[in-house]
Amino acid sequence: MQLWTAPDPAPNPQRVSAFLRVKGISLPETRLSLVRREHKSAEMLAKNPRGQVPFLELDDGRVLAETISICRYLDELHPEPPLFGGTAFERAETDMWIRRAETLLGTPVGLAWQHDHPMTAALVAQIPAMGKAARVQAAAALGWFDGQLQGKSWLAGDRFTMADIALLSIVDFGRWIGIAAGDDLSALNAWHARATARCA
Amino acid sequence: MQLWTAPDPAPNPQRVSAFLRVKGISLPETRLSLVRREHKSAEMLAKNPRGQVPFLELDDGRVLAETISICRYLDELHPEPPLFGGTAFERAETDMWIRRAETLLGTPVGLAWQHDHPMTAALVAQIPAMGKAARVQAAAALGWFDGQLQGKSWLAGDRFTMADIALLSIVDFGRWIGIAAGDDLSALNAWHARATARCA
Repeated sequence: MQLWTAPDPAPNPQRVSAFLRVKGISLPETRLSLVRREHKSAEMLAKNPRGQVPFLELDDGRVLAETISICRYLDELHPEPPLFGGTAFERAETDMWIRRAETLLGTPVGLAWQHDHPMTAALVAQIPAMGKAARVQAAAALGWFDGQLQGKSWLAGDRFTMADIALLSIVDFGRWIGIAAGDDLSALNAWHARATARCA
Repeated sequence: MQLWTAPDPAPNPQRVSAFLRVKGISLPETRLSLVRREHKSAEMLAKNPRGQVPFLELDDGRVLAETISICRYLDELHPEPPLFGGTAFERAETDMWIRRAETLLGTPVGLAWQHDHPMTAALVAQIPAMGKAARVQAAAALGWFDGQLQGKSWLAGDRFTMADIALLSIVDFGRWIGIAAGDDLSALNAWHARATARCA
């Protein structure tokens, strides 16, 4: 199998890279240029009709897209250490935290990027009021995660999971576009240092 | 275990109800009034800090929130018929289609609901331009799903899955707020009739 991806710091490729490092998996990779829009070519759209990277192409030609789904598949093929949970409850709990990371923080960070960042101004019809509102929502979400991380090592308690990798990639992308956790969010910042070290 | 939920037509409770019907699972349910904001009470926030329903409370007090995560757990406990896939590839493929349904259609439908619907006008600071743009994005997503459903019975081919339940609930909620598939989207409309019958 091979991974079609793009160079960092695009957050989805970064998320798969971190997962592969933590798992100790190496895969053949082909990196596409997002700037040259290679991921939107007819050849790539035939593989992933959503027109995004990363996606995983199996040897028989089947394709899996969507970052979390790709990692979920590889986690089953290489079960140790389990990053999606080892029991039915743990798998559902991990999924819950992934979804909270993406919905509560990922969505407003994405909207801030689309509607309130100079790099996207030429690509999308920006709605500045939405970008500003999204920054406020993202800041509130950082506070919520700080509360949830009080007294815990990781989102799912003492289990480091894919949810931590997902949240880390979103927090880092948010920082890069100017949405940063203040010093008062001490539990989140301590978690950030732990997660960064764990994914290095 | 018991399910804390709310009456239809809220889309997340509806999605869990459809899943339980298809699986033939019955669970004790407590329905909270969203209008009276019972899901935001201190007692409920202690169970689900996100302040949403549905969530599942196990007999030992552990809680699982997030609609898809709840269904994922119940699907493992009651494996037949498998609605999240029976193999590693099928599980990842199902997850991919769930994510596509939620991201491509669910996100703009949600934004249209928040920013361009009279029922939410009193609850959120609406950004009408965002609501209008979201309706355009949602319409484009309906067209994309129509293309993806050409020649297929279900999103994952011949397997009816949780992704169909997720997409159905989003399409139905979209209709309810005035985002409807035109008659020209024949593959999507045929799928909608099949999925509605399958979930009845």
